Amino acid sequence: MNSRENKPGEAAPAASPRHRPERAHPVTLRDVAEAAGVSTATVSLVVNKKKDARIAEETRQRVKDAIRALGYRPNAMAKTLVSGTSRFIGLVADGVATTPFAGQIIHGAQDEAWKHGYALLIANTEGNRELEQDAISMMLEYKVRGILYSTWFHRETDIPASLREADFVLVNCFAAEPGARAVVPDEVQGGKSATEILLRHGHRRIAFINATIPAPAKDGRLLGYRQALEEAGIAFDPGLVMEAYPDQEGGYGATGELLKRSATAVYCYNDRMAMGLYDGLREHGLSIPEDLAVVGFDNQEVIAAHLRPPLSTVALPHYELGAAGVRMLLGLEETAGAEAAKIHCPTVERNSVRVAARAKT
Amino acid sequence: MNSRENKPGEAAPAASPRHRPERAHPVTLRDVAEAAGVSTATVSLVVNKKKDARIAEETRQRVKDAIRALGYRPNAMAKTLVSGTSRFIGLVADGVATTPFAGQIIHGAQDEAWKHGYALLIANTEGNRELEQDAISMMLEYKVRGILYSTWFHRETDIPASLREADFVLVNCFAAEPGARAVVPDEVQGGKSATEILLRHGHRRIAFINATIPAPAKDGRLLGYRQALEEAGIAFDPGLVMEAYPDQEGGYGATGELLKRSATAVYCYNDRMAMGLYDGLREHGLSIPEDLAVVGFDNQEVIAAHLRPPLSTVALPHYELGAAGVRMLLGLEETAGAEAAKIHCPTVERNSVRVAARAKT
Repeated sequence: MNSRENKPGEAAPAASPRHRPERAHPVTLRDVAEAAGVSTATVSLVVNKKKDARIAEETRQRVKDAIRALGYRPNAMAKTLVSGTSRFIGLVADGVATTPFAGQIIHGAQDEAWKHGYALLIANTEGNRELEQDAISMMLEYKVRGILYSTWFHRETDIPASLREADFVLVNCFAAEPGARAVVPDEVQGGKSATEILLRHGHRRIAFINATIPAPAKDGRLLGYRQALEEAGIAFDPGLVMEAYPDQEGGYGATGELLKRSATAVYCYNDRMAMGLYDGLREHGLSIPEDLAVVGFDNQEVIAAHLRPPLSTVALPHYELGAAGVRMLLGLEETAGAEAAKIHCPTVERNSVRVAARAKT
Repeated sequence: MNSRENKPGEAAPAASPRHRPERAHPVTLRDVAEAAGVSTATVSLVVNKKKDARIAEETRQRVKDAIRALGYRPNAMAKTLVSGTSRFIGLVADGVATTPFAGQIIHGAQDEAWKHGYALLIANTEGNRELEQDAISMMLEYKVRGILYSTWFHRETDIPASLREADFVLVNCFAAEPGARAVVPDEVQGGKSATEILLRHGHRRIAFINATIPAPAKDGRLLGYRQALEEAGIAFDPGLVMEAYPDQEGGYGATGELLKRSATAVYCYNDRMAMGLYDGLREHGLSIPEDLAVVGFDNQEVIAAHLRPPLSTVALPHYELGAAGVRMLLGLEETAGAEAAKIHCPTVERNSVRVAARAKT
């Protein structure tokens, strides 16, 4: 944190007459040419790395020194006109503002893009179709290398017509259309890992509070739950699977029904439901994990690690989704067959789970 | 939500041999020229809106029709070379991935930028100085109209040397330097509003759990708390002001001390502290708002509205900060004098506050 804070009111010291901070005079090609004692044409050849151009190494070096000394910035736009595509990768996101998840997709995509010399051109559409259309058009006009089309929750999507004018990869979403490259979280593995946390601690009677809303996450996480039970030799009991709206209120509201199931552990569709369930269990005088072990999903920022007790969960790999999307776009990573590439969801163990009572004896 | 979800496994139907979706052939200037029956030079003059160029209106119209019919996309880079600056506004953010707050700054800045025909070029530095340097250099090479330099929490900042090469506005941060344009939240008004929620409900003995970490928010919110009490004719009691680390654990840990103060209401520095305090109060068998009224600050996504009871709080105006930053950059909004422009923090009332017991009789 910054310790050189001012007291309120001193936020920006008064200065009158008010003036702008000194703005540096932009260095031109001509400035460099004069400093190096060569023609602007020669500077241009060096800047645009025309290898075939016959320029003495000593001259080339003098120009480079002048560029460094003066801090000359070549015009990237001009370079683009020569090369045909810019050093931009576009990222269309539908929920940067409304969810902390998109931020990690941006973070991963940008880190990977910079690694390969590309800058990320981000458009935040908040699901507005018109804005999305404008954003894609703008990216095409700026000749992006390609576009990552991402959604804040894992779902199927259409492919906007204009998106086809660019090389593109779907991130956290997929299209029914054959061959549309996509990268998504491995929901089945994630659901399996969440259930396995509880199995490892000896729990056999594990309830699952799934979401009421149709989504690949709903189907995938349930399938993973069933696979984990099957591998542990535990028969699937439909009576242990419930559904609720995937937020705190949904988890809280499911408390009563859950307690009728006499389970020793519960896996919630997401951390927000687990947060609500925590409140519900407390109101019933029950403690976590002594009376009931709880596992969530998402490893949601500002929630999972800060519940009492901290919540064991499975993280959605948003950072990796963004990074893999860029590698796929640049052809550094290919998807296996026509399936969307699936990214592993890592397990995050905290204190909301302990050895099952019956397992201890 | 999308209801056309596939069952797992069908995520992306198998197609062999695998192929890319058909990619449209990009329309060239020549295509337009042929369609309109004019020279490419004529098309170029129309595209670049050369008013002085002597072109018959009928011809100009024919070119425009061809552009629409073919869906030709002029090269924005080329236009930039003519105009000198691009239609980009750069946004450097230090915490898109690590906080939901930055998302709203991006949302507000982008909505305002699009309104004026600009696209946002976003760089997410996560506080990495080197990445920040590269990001600003990249923006300068792309000739951005200007740069918004933003931080995820309100603080003082230095002005990177390269930032001075562009027209810039500081967003959610400020510099001691005279005249550096900046837009920040009005922490004093926010702290005053938070306290006034409790005063309106008849509370007189109001505790304030401030943050341990130095920040304009810490000083400003305390000042606002004092101003509100003063206007209500209540003497400031230093014994009612405590400090804790600004997260759930800090709020939870402050519970015991708070209960010794025999206050009827408490205002927490942020919503995360209030969330922890909720747990602490429950463990003492106390209920909110019956035994203690609670108010937070931030209106933090996925927390404030979902606590039991939902938390009354004051929202940080991140969307407005981004929008105001763009207006300031484009000269549509001037700051009053040398002070950083302060944005109003709106009150959000929920059920964590009720009329004070002593006020009811």
